[in-house]
Parts: sequence; structure tokens; C-alpha cells
Amino acid sequence: MNEEKLLSTKHIYSGKILKFDLDTVALPNGRTTELEILRHPGASAVVPLKDDGTVILIRQLRHAVGGFIYEIPAGKLDPQEDPRDCAARELEEEVGYRAGHLELLTSIWTAPGFTDEVIHIFQGTNLEVGKQNLDQDEVLEIVEWPIEKAISKIQDGTIRDAKTIIGLQMVFWQKKFTDDQ
Amino acid sequence: MNEEKLLSTKHIYSGKILKFDLDTVALPNGRTTELEILRHPGASAVVPLKDDGTVILIRQLRHAVGGFIYEIPAGKLDPQEDPRDCAARELEEEVGYRAGHLELLTSIWTAPGFTDEVIHIFQGTNLEVGKQNLDQDEVLEIVEWPIEKAISKIQDGTIRDAKTIIGLQMVFWQKKFTDDQ
Repeated sequence: MNEEKLLSTKHIYSGKILKFDLDTVALPNGRTTELEILRHPGASAVVPLKDDGTVILIRQLRHAVGGFIYEIPAGKLDPQEDPRDCAARELEEEVGYRAGHLELLTSIWTAPGFTDEVIHIFQGTNLEVGKQNLDQDEVLEIVEWPIEKAISKIQDGTIRDAKTIIGLQMVFWQKKFTDDQ
Repeated sequence: MNEEKLLSTKHIYSGKILKFDLDTVALPNGRTTELEILRHPGASAVVPLKDDGTVILIRQLRHAVGGFIYEIPAGKLDPQEDPRDCAARELEEEVGYRAGHLELLTSIWTAPGFTDEVIHIFQGTNLEVGKQNLDQDEVLEIVEWPIEKAISKIQDGTIRDAKTIIGLQMVFWQKKFTDDQ
């Protein structure tokens, strides 16, 4: 199949972080369609894993979903920022730890039907205490659980955030595979 | 911690599917902030699993991320639609299969920093051939892989869609656990 062709873009809104566009696109099947696109700068996230198998999560107020939810530390990329630097920065700012080692697990599309947001998910190990420094509109508490407990909280529906589920599952099975060797 | 309080909503845009609002919110920490929110009707997705361990994926053109990506069949909820009915409908429309059994694996928030989108992810088994019926702006091909191959495509970064990674991981480990019994 051939690729699509962008015919025009109508800018609907430019906010502090997000831009909302209405794109007119020629599809490979010959049709022309209008698509609503939210443009996002991208983000990094970290699964902070202590030597004893504890993971550090946050319970954060998320207005969009109407309450507090469990997440791994994460934040948006600054312009031109390297995703690894962003992961290190957000880890220390949100939960007050520095990671001696950051390993990229994967980079995900959160909702490719309507946004270009990508989240780079890292595993952070060799943790040492740093300095928490929250943004003024961040409302959160820190939760430390054995990773097996975090996985059970995915199974029972307590943890529902996409990047958090993917990061925890990848770290858990990687750790299990290593422990079993 | 207490909850937040919505002070006002400014409607920026109402499209065919998405609504974009600018909400002013009083946070539990006493601050007032403006938050950009994309309101979404929600969606259902299905991991179609054949008796022989093959999963059925689609390779779909996604304008927002600039090309073709691998996904499980999925689609938006119609108004008041039951997520299970939506899953069954999208499975048949997109890949031409009906599932004798649909089991809810989990319901995820795709990007809770800026949208209320929830995706209900099902496992579909006891598959039988139905009738594919694509929307006119859907451009996709069907791919059938052993689930082990699909998992390896997560590891190597070929599969990057959040709902697809979560669904495949959950089905794979559930199947592995059952097979090992």
C-alpha cells in the first residue's frame, strides 16, 4: 500500500503544551478525509526499581480522568531534550531519586488514532536519594510496593495507566527471567 | 488529600468525535490551574486468539503518527454502547471474525495527562469467520502471527501501540500460565 498525503492543516488551538489541528489528508485508497490531531511534544517515563525488587510509583491527581490514579514517574520533553535526560529529570523531581542506570525498555504510541504523543519508557536502577521538586500544579503522593504487588494491582484493575502497565510488565518479566537464570 | 474542584470550562472545539476543552480547576493544594482536556467517547479493543495460538493483528495507516503501525482491532464506542458489543462489532468489521467468547482483560487510560479516553481490552476466543466491513477511511491489512512472534515484535520495537502491547502481554502470560498447568 502507498502512503497518505497531507493536503492542508487548519490550526484549531495552540495551548501551553498541546496543539490541536484539523488535517485534510488524501488516503492511499483515493479518498480524502479530515482528521483531528492533537500534537504533543512527547514524554519520558521511568520504572524506578530498587535492588530489593521494590518499585516506586506515584498516586497523582489527574483532572482528565476525574481523580487520583497510580502511575510511574513521567513528564513531557522540553524542546530538543534527550528522552534519557528527561527521564532522569522527572525521576528526581517527582519522587526524589536519581538512577545510576537508565535502560530504555520501549517507546510507545499512547493513542495513535488522534495524537502523535510518544512516551519513552525506561527502567531506572542503582537508585540513590536525590531531591524531590514538584511543579506547582502536581499533586501526588509516593507509593513503594514490591513489584509483585504492583503487578497484582494491574490484574485487579487498580493500575490502569497505559505507560505504567507496560513499564511494570516489561520490568517484571525481565526481572523474573534474570532471577530464574 | 482532598479532591479537586472544577471552576469553569471553556469549549475550544467540538469535532466529529473529539471535544477539546480548557478547564479551570482548583487543586487540593489551594492553587488554581488551567488544564487542556481532550474529551473522547472511549473505545474497545480485542486480542483475537485462535485455538492454535495465532493472534490476528492489523497493520493500519495512522495519520497522527505518520505511517502504518501494528494494532489489535479496536474502535470507538457509539453513544450508550456496551463495551463488549463494541468489541464484537469492531472485531468483525475490521478483521472479519466473530468471537464465541469475549473476556475483559482490563480497561486502560491511554493518556490521562490530557484526555479522558478509556479503552476496554478484551481477549476474543472461539473465533469463527464473519464478514469484514471497513469504514471508508480505514486503510489496513490483516496480519496473523503466533503470539510468541507478536511478543518478540514488542521487544524489538516493531509493535509500539499502547493498547496492543498491553493486550498481547496479558493474553500471552495468561496463556503461558494455563499451558504450564
